Amino acid sequence: MKIALAQINPTVGDFEKNSEKIVSYIKKAKKEQCELVIFPELALCGYPPQDLLLKPHFIQRNLQYLKKIQLNAKGIKVIVGFVDKRGGNIYNALALLQNKKIADIYHKNFLPNYGVFDEKRYFSEGSQVSIYDYAGELFSANICEDIWHKRNISVLKGKNLSFLVNISASPFYLGKLNLRRAVLSKAAKELKTTVIYCNLAGGQDELVFDGTSMVFNPQGKLIKVGRRFEEDFITFDTEKRYSVKKLPINKIKDTFSALCLGLKDYVRKNGFEKVVLGISGGIDSSLVASIAAICLGKNNVLGVIMPSEFTSQGTYRDALKLCANLKIKHYVVSIKNIYQDYLELLHPFFKRLPFDKTEENLQARIRGNVLMAFSNKFGWLVLNTGNKSEVSCGYCTLYGDMVGGFGLLKDVPKTLVYKLARYIKRVYGHPIPASVIKRPPSAELRPNQKDEDALAPYALLDKIINLYVENDLSKEEIIRLGYDKKTVGKIIKLIDKNEYKRRQAPPGVKITPKAFGKDRRMPITNSFKE
Amino acid sequence: MKIALAQINPTVGDFEKNSEKIVSYIKKAKKEQCELVIFPELALCGYPPQDLLLKPHFIQRNLQYLKKIQLNAKGIKVIVGFVDKRGGNIYNALALLQNKKIADIYHKNFLPNYGVFDEKRYFSEGSQVSIYDYAGELFSANICEDIWHKRNISVLKGKNLSFLVNISASPFYLGKLNLRRAVLSKAAKELKTTVIYCNLAGGQDELVFDGTSMVFNPQGKLIKVGRRFEEDFITFDTEKRYSVKKLPINKIKDTFSALCLGLKDYVRKNGFEKVVLGISGGIDSSLVASIAAICLGKNNVLGVIMPSEFTSQGTYRDALKLCANLKIKHYVVSIKNIYQDYLELLHPFFKRLPFDKTEENLQARIRGNVLMAFSNKFGWLVLNTGNKSEVSCGYCTLYGDMVGGFGLLKDVPKTLVYKLARYIKRVYGHPIPASVIKRPPSAELRPNQKDEDALAPYALLDKIINLYVENDLSKEEIIRLGYDKKTVGKIIKLIDKNEYKRRQAPPGVKITPKAFGKDRRMPITNSFKE
Repeated sequence: MKIALAQINPTVGDFEKNSEKIVSYIKKAKKEQCELVIFPELALCGYPPQDLLLKPHFIQRNLQYLKKIQLNAKGIKVIVGFVDKRGGNIYNALALLQNKKIADIYHKNFLPNYGVFDEKRYFSEGSQVSIYDYAGELFSANICEDIWHKRNISVLKGKNLSFLVNISASPFYLGKLNLRRAVLSKAAKELKTTVIYCNLAGGQDELVFDGTSMVFNPQGKLIKVGRRFEEDFITFDTEKRYSVKKLPINKIKDTFSALCLGLKDYVRKNGFEKVVLGISGGIDSSLVASIAAICLGKNNVLGVIMPSEFTSQGTYRDALKLCANLKIKHYVVSIKNIYQDYLELLHPFFKRLPFDKTEENLQARIRGNVLMAFSNKFGWLVLNTGNKSEVSCGYCTLYGDMVGGFGLLKDVPKTLVYKLARYIKRVYGHPIPASVIKRPPSAELRPNQKDEDALAPYALLDKIINLYVENDLSKEEIIRLGYDKKTVGKIIKLIDKNEYKRRQAPPGVKITPKAFGKDRRMPITNSFKE
Repeated sequence: MKIALAQINPTVGDFEKNSEKIVSYIKKAKKEQCELVIFPELALCGYPPQDLLLKPHFIQRNLQYLKKIQLNAKGIKVIVGFVDKRGGNIYNALALLQNKKIADIYHKNFLPNYGVFDEKRYFSEGSQVSIYDYAGELFSANICEDIWHKRNISVLKGKNLSFLVNISASPFYLGKLNLRRAVLSKAAKELKTTVIYCNLAGGQDELVFDGTSMVFNPQGKLIKVGRRFEEDFITFDTEKRYSVKKLPINKIKDTFSALCLGLKDYVRKNGFEKVVLGISGGIDSSLVASIAAICLGKNNVLGVIMPSEFTSQGTYRDALKLCANLKIKHYVVSIKNIYQDYLELLHPFFKRLPFDKTEENLQARIRGNVLMAFSNKFGWLVLNTGNKSEVSCGYCTLYGDMVGGFGLLKDVPKTLVYKLARYIKRVYGHPIPASVIKRPPSAELRPNQKDEDALAPYALLDKIINLYVENDLSKEEIIRLGYDKKTVGKIIKLIDKNEYKRRQAPPGVKITPKAFGKDRRMPITNSFKE
């Protein structure tokens, strides 16, 4: 039996285009003599549709388009994810289509409701497993989380399946692919059957689906693998023997690819063409500009350089050099005078009060206003350049450097920012000047400012953030691991008290096991003392 | 049996103060010869603790403090909400304490996971009901949602209970109290028993808990009721007869009280004293300033008046008059010159492109920057003044008039804004000048601008928002109700495409059955065409 896996990149809510895409892959599969073609979880409506699922007409529309697809299921079987409706309940479902009919519908049994997932908010749980007979060959199909649970494996034991299909919409984070491999390989071995896994590709707001569909043989070995971070169509014949494949995992490359796909899809699916960002001559904006130029094309990236009296010659030169290296158009808008204007404007009220974060934030907010003016005038999407280390500690100005439609590095710790910069140098030549990478990071909002003086050395800071944010360790536990008590106390306090800033931050690509956003839902009003 | 209901206002995570408060009410109940004192759902840790529940040391701390409370349960029974832990699972639980011991623990059976609720993200479901015997009197206790479900009522039928206790953390929205009454009264009648309902009081980020604890007799009549929107302590004797009470419901007064409590608690629980806001002379900022002055005290409210070349004499005069009426300190910061400075700064790039939303937004963002400067310099919380009608349509400037730590009117439609203004006039004299209420609303960012020209008459707009946002009706369904096709199409498009702005909006008090925020979780990237 020849089987096709279509790891497509649908757009949430775009039934017209998504169904066209599905139909075109059905045709392709037929042309390649496949007997079955498989699409990912909720491929028809895109994932996650969130509260669109609460609109009855959204569910209705999805059923209408399933009918259209159904009529194309002739001479081939189709497995596709959609939203089923029975009475007042809706289900995360897959349909097995054949002879222009729905041969069967399966309802997802296990609904993830942790991390970024809210499936119990919408769906009811299915309770049946599926077993299909095709010309004497038995197979089963289920959805994503189902295959992660023992119960659903054990009920299939001894059924002598030819293969098990799992359709999925599994978002990327570093380390996730290894987890998936372990689960799927184990299922294959336990059931002594071939496991065919078809995952979604594409970016949707804060999530990136990394594709990488896989086939495991009954010995649990990987024998087929789809492209990472893009749409793909792969075929597989149950009669043939395949050599064992290696799983393509590379932390830095994967991060780069995730950011690239997340950015491209946010821009494209929201109807933008060009992006604009502030280029400071620092590492974060240099990295964001480089990734944008590589992924969107240099003609779609505009830089605005906004020097102030605190901007050093070195960073200003680096900002210009970066734009030249990337061959992106740039504008120089000095904020010196307008900053002085604000100081004068506010002098009657602030009088002789000393320079403090107020004046620092004024500068950042002038830059925010200028960037947004370019965005409003020309319809360009503003890219935010804040990294996870800053965003964690609130080392950023609300409505200042925090402006933007998309925060590309929001979940990328500073230490990983440097690694990405080096990766880009290695793979794409020299877009980021060496001095940008060497210079100690500074916000340059007052004389002799250095990030690491205000926070902690980034290598240390990122470790504490990892333990506290991503692993939910307590202050005591982190200190017991050998970290300095005072530093840990300071960092944790900063993380806790800056929740209000993050609540107003733009979305950005999830990279780590726990990103800020719907992945970590903290109260702002919070008196829990670590 | 004399029973006390302590509808307390805890702070999320503040175990020290919450447990002190609980112990002080236990003592008060003993002093008043009560045999049982009842506290609300999760009273010990506050509600909702959100992802603090994922921290094992948070759960641990809550158990340690339960022990402290337990030691005070002597000579009286105590029912209190806390988080229980069994193996790897946690439960939304209540403890029955007596003789310094935990006599029993009950686990909530029905976990709400819709609207603003995410309980299935954290808690496992209990499966038992509780029946307690106290000197021959049988009673049962359960938690919030439990009493809303048939199954939990039917299993208690025929048990001949003396009373049923329900502890709750039920957030306010308009119409909710009637729902609660209906459910509780029905339970009392069906079980032919007294129902004792103890609800939380206080504000927590976007939620306000309105207290209003209630006792219903076995005929389903309301016989005791706690204060609305504040902490209260009421007692009730099962041996005594009580006259039937009326439920205090008043849409406008309740809205005012909810905004007041939400504001006060956000300010207080986040460690602020004073608030600052931009006073435009328009209705929204006038209302926010009035509510703040009434609820926080006039000395805790600072106004900043920021006229531009587009500010009319009338609105400027009204802004000054409002501050005088409210007796709040104010500053006048003209943005005329700095706006010109921005125009000059950007002229080389924008050249002869016509005046558009860019220049409008520049002004709003200058005001945002000035307000934030006052906030940064003096430590005042910025109040945002955007109403639900604006926020729905994106008729507001991101990082401009959308700045602020708390958006008091975020969920208040414009038509209700006017009603609140009239309510305040009636009850508190004349703080808002009549001309503010009469003048057609305008953003005053260009000559002769009127909100209703850009959107639709507010009475119509608010109806469409209600049908589309709160009731999830489709465009077709709304048009079928008799609304103009073109207007409905325009408004719905505005609501959909401005999700990205709302994602970066400050939190504000939930007033309606569906508020923006965690109550309505829409994708930004969304190609669903209504």
